[in-house]
Amino acid sequence: MSAYDELMAFSRETQALGQILGRLGWDQETVMPSGAAPQRGEEMAALESVLHARRSDPRVGDWLEAVDTAALDAVGKAQIREIRRAFERANKVPGALAARIARVTSEAQGKWAASRADEDVAAFLPVLEEVVMLKRDEGAALASDGDIYDAMLDDYEPGMTGARLDEIFGDMRPALVELRAAVLERPAPTGLSGSFDESAQMRLTREVAKVFGYDMKHGRVDKAVHPFSSGSGLDVRITTRTSATDPFNCLYSTIHEVGHASYEQGIDPAYLLTPLGRGVSMGVHESQSRIYENQLGRSKAFCGWLFGRMSESFGDLGVADAKGFYAAVNKVDRGFIRTEADEVQYNLHIMLRLDLERQLMRGEIGVVDLEEAWNTRFAADFGYAVDRPSNGVLQDVHWSVGLFGYFPTYALGNVYAGCLHEALRMAVPELDGQLAAGDLGPATTWLRENLQQHGGLYAPAEVIERASGQAPSVAPLLSYLQTKFGGLYDL
Amino acid sequence: MSAYDELMAFSRETQALGQILGRLGWDQETVMPSGAAPQRGEEMAALESVLHARRSDPRVGDWLEAVDTAALDAVGKAQIREIRRAFERANKVPGALAARIARVTSEAQGKWAASRADEDVAAFLPVLEEVVMLKRDEGAALASDGDIYDAMLDDYEPGMTGARLDEIFGDMRPALVELRAAVLERPAPTGLSGSFDESAQMRLTREVAKVFGYDMKHGRVDKAVHPFSSGSGLDVRITTRTSATDPFNCLYSTIHEVGHASYEQGIDPAYLLTPLGRGVSMGVHESQSRIYENQLGRSKAFCGWLFGRMSESFGDLGVADAKGFYAAVNKVDRGFIRTEADEVQYNLHIMLRLDLERQLMRGEIGVVDLEEAWNTRFAADFGYAVDRPSNGVLQDVHWSVGLFGYFPTYALGNVYAGCLHEALRMAVPELDGQLAAGDLGPATTWLRENLQQHGGLYAPAEVIERASGQAPSVAPLLSYLQTKFGGLYDL
Repeated sequence: MSAYDELMAFSRETQALGQILGRLGWDQETVMPSGAAPQRGEEMAALESVLHARRSDPRVGDWLEAVDTAALDAVGKAQIREIRRAFERANKVPGALAARIARVTSEAQGKWAASRADEDVAAFLPVLEEVVMLKRDEGAALASDGDIYDAMLDDYEPGMTGARLDEIFGDMRPALVELRAAVLERPAPTGLSGSFDESAQMRLTREVAKVFGYDMKHGRVDKAVHPFSSGSGLDVRITTRTSATDPFNCLYSTIHEVGHASYEQGIDPAYLLTPLGRGVSMGVHESQSRIYENQLGRSKAFCGWLFGRMSESFGDLGVADAKGFYAAVNKVDRGFIRTEADEVQYNLHIMLRLDLERQLMRGEIGVVDLEEAWNTRFAADFGYAVDRPSNGVLQDVHWSVGLFGYFPTYALGNVYAGCLHEALRMAVPELDGQLAAGDLGPATTWLRENLQQHGGLYAPAEVIERASGQAPSVAPLLSYLQTKFGGLYDL
Repeated sequence: MSAYDELMAFSRETQALGQILGRLGWDQETVMPSGAAPQRGEEMAALESVLHARRSDPRVGDWLEAVDTAALDAVGKAQIREIRRAFERANKVPGALAARIARVTSEAQGKWAASRADEDVAAFLPVLEEVVMLKRDEGAALASDGDIYDAMLDDYEPGMTGARLDEIFGDMRPALVELRAAVLERPAPTGLSGSFDESAQMRLTREVAKVFGYDMKHGRVDKAVHPFSSGSGLDVRITTRTSATDPFNCLYSTIHEVGHASYEQGIDPAYLLTPLGRGVSMGVHESQSRIYENQLGRSKAFCGWLFGRMSESFGDLGVADAKGFYAAVNKVDRGFIRTEADEVQYNLHIMLRLDLERQLMRGEIGVVDLEEAWNTRFAADFGYAVDRPSNGVLQDVHWSVGLFGYFPTYALGNVYAGCLHEALRMAVPELDGQLAAGDLGPATTWLRENLQQHGGLYAPAEVIERASGQAPSVAPLLSYLQTKFGGLYDL
C-alpha cells in the first residue's frame, strides 16, 4: 500500500469512529433512559480519547510526509488538506487540555441549564470563567502568533477572519437596522390560532421533510428538546419538537434540519467516511438549512401550498387566506430570543454575540462584565431592555460548551443563502410555480448538484462562489430581504 | 497510581467502549434506517478493531505482571482474573484472524437469512464452510494442546467442558424422553384464540416487565425482529415482538429478556464498567431469563394473575378459566423449532446441536454432511421427519455468525434455573400466594441478593452453588418438570 492508501485507510476508521460519537449524541437526546447519563458520559469520554489519540497519532505525521501530494488529483489533494488540518490542530492542543475542556464544558452545560432556569447569572459565572480560561488557552495554542479569535473562527469556518466578518457585518448592519425600523412602524399581522394536534404535526412534518427531499431510507425524524441534525453519509437523522399552540415551531425546525441533513445526504457517495464526506464548514451548512427554511420554506409560493396542507390537517388556522398565512409565517416582532428571531432581525443578534465573545477571548472584558455588557448592547441595538437573564445573556447554550467563534457562522449562512438563492432563481425561472405546487425537486436538485455533492472538496468561500457565480457578499441577501419585507409590510 | 489502578483505569475505558458496541447493535435492530447498514458495518468493525487492540495491548501484560495480586481483596483478585482471561484470549488469536472472522460472519449472516428464506441449504454451505474453517483455526489457537470444542465452550461458560456436558445431558436425556412420550399420549389442551391488538400487547408487556422488576429509568422496551437484551450497568435495553394471533410470543419474550436485563441491572453498582460488572457467563445469564420466563412466569400461580390481566386487556381469550389458561401457556406439542419449544422438549433440541457442532469443530463431519446428519438425528430424537430446511438445519442464526459452543449454555441455563428455583421455593415459602397476586418482589429480590448482585465475582458453577446451596445438577430441574407436567397432563 502507498502512504496515501495507508493514511486513507487509517482515516476511514477514524471517520467511522467519529460517526459513532454522533450516534451516541443522537441516542442521548432521543431514546436514552434518563438514568443512563453518567455511564453515557464515560462512554463518550472514552471514545473521545480514542479519537484524539488517532487524530494526533505520529503515524499520521509520517504518512503526511511520505505522501507525494503533487501526484494526487484534486480530490486526493483535498483529502490530504483536511487530514493535515485535523492532525495539526490535534497536535497543537495538548491532550490534557482537550480532556479538561471536555470535562469542564460537560459540567458547565448542566450548570448553565440550571442557572437559566433559576434566572441566576451569578451561579453560572464561576464555571463560565473556567471555560473561558480553558478556551483562551486552547485559542492561544491554536493561534501561535496570530489573533486568538481568528484561530477559533477557523475551527468552524476555515479561512474566515474577524476582519472579514467586520466588513461583512459592517455592510449588513445599516440596511438591517433601517429595514427593521420601517417594518416595526407598520401594523403587525395576525398570528396563527387554532388546535394543533401534536401527532398530526409529526405526520405533517414527516411529509414536509420528504417534500424537501429528505431521504428516509438514510435517516429518520424524531422528537427532541432541541432540533438538530446528526450524522453523515448513509445515516443522517434529524429531530424536531412540537408545541400545541405553535405548529410553525415543529414545521420550520424540521425544514431547517432537513437543509442540514440534505447537505450531508447529498454529498458524493465516493467521499463516504473520508474527510470530504461532510459539509465543509458550519457557515456553508447553515446556508443549506437557511435557504431551505427561509428563501424556500417561507416564500410566498410555498406558503400557499403549506396553507392548504395545514388547513387540511388542522382545520381553521385563524388566518383568512394564503396571503394572511404568508404574513403570519413572516411576522416581524419585538423579541429577545435569537432562535425565535425573524429574517430581518436574526443577524443583529449574531453581531451582538460576535462582539462580546471576541472581547471575552481577547481578555478585553471579563465574565463578570458580561451581563451588563449584554444588556447595554441589547438596549442600544434593539431599543428596549432585557427583562431577565434567560432572555439575555443566559439564553444560548453555546458559551457554556465552549463554542466561541461559532455564532458568526449562523450569519454567514444567511449571507451565503442569499447568494445561492439569487443564483437559483436565475437557474430555475419557474421556481415559484413549482413551490406553489409543493414541488421542491428542481430547487433541491440544483442545490445538490451545485453545492451539496462537493462535501469538503472546496473551501467555504470557493464552493459558494462556484455555486452562485460570485464571491460571497451581503448584497443578494439584503436585496432579497428588502423586496420580501417591503412587499409584506407595504413599505 | 499503582499498577492495579492504572490497569483498572485502562480497563474501564475498554469496558465503556464495549458498551458502545452493544448500543450500536441495539440501534441497528430497532431504529436504524434501512439504508445505513453498510456504514454501520464499517463503524462496528472500526470499534471492534480498537477493542481488539486494547484487549491485547502489551501494557495490559506489563500491568498484570506488576500487580501484587496476593495483596488484593477478593474483588480485586476477581477483576484481575477476568482481565487476564481477556488478555490471554486476545493474544492467542491473531488480529488478522479475528478481523477475518468478523468480516466473514457478517457476510455469512446475510447469506444464512437469504438461504433460509429460499429453503436453499446449498447456497449457504460455501460461506458456512469458510466460517467453520476460521472458527476451527481460532479454536486451535485458543485450545493450545487441549480439545478444540472445550476451548470454545470456555468462551461462553468458563470452566465448562464437553465431558461435563456429556454427563449433564446423559443424566437428563432419558427422563426428558420418557416425560415427553407420556405427555404426547395425552389429549392436547386448547390454545388461545381471540383478538390481540398489538399496541395493547405492548402496553401490557411494559406493565409485566415492571411487575418483574425491570427498571425503566435504566432501560427501555422496544420492538425488534428478534427479542434480545443489550447493555450492562445503567443502560440495559430489551426488545420484544408482537404477533396478532399469539400474544404469548410478546409476553414471554419480554419476561425472558427481563430476566437477562434484571441480572445486568441487579449487579453491585460498585462493579460498574469493570470486568465484574456483567453477567458471569451465558449459562448463568440464561438461568435468569429461564427462571423468570418458566419457573416464575409459567407457574400456575402467576398464570392465574396473567389470565386476569389478559382478559381485561383483550376480552375473551378462548379458554374457559385460569386452569385452561395455564394449560395453554404450557402446551406441549410436536414441532421443529427450538425457540418455540416447550420446557419438556427444549433441551433435546440443544443436545442435537451440541453433538453436531462438536463433530463439525473436530472435523468428524463436514458442512456438506450437515443437513443429512441433522435430519437423521432429528427423526431419531423426535420421531418425525424435518419437512424443510428452515425447520431444520437452517433454523438458527448461530453457526452463521460463528457461535460454536454457545448452544449448550441454553440448556445449562435451564439446569441452573432448576437449582435456583428449588432454593427459592425453600427460602420464600409464600411464593405461590405472591405470584397469584402478581407480586414478583420477593422472588426477584431473592435472585438479586443471592445471585445477580455478584456479577462476574464468582465462577459460574460457584455462584449457582452459593445461591442454591448445592453443586449444579439436573435433579431439581427434572423433578420440577415431572411434577409440573405430571399435574398438567394427569400422568
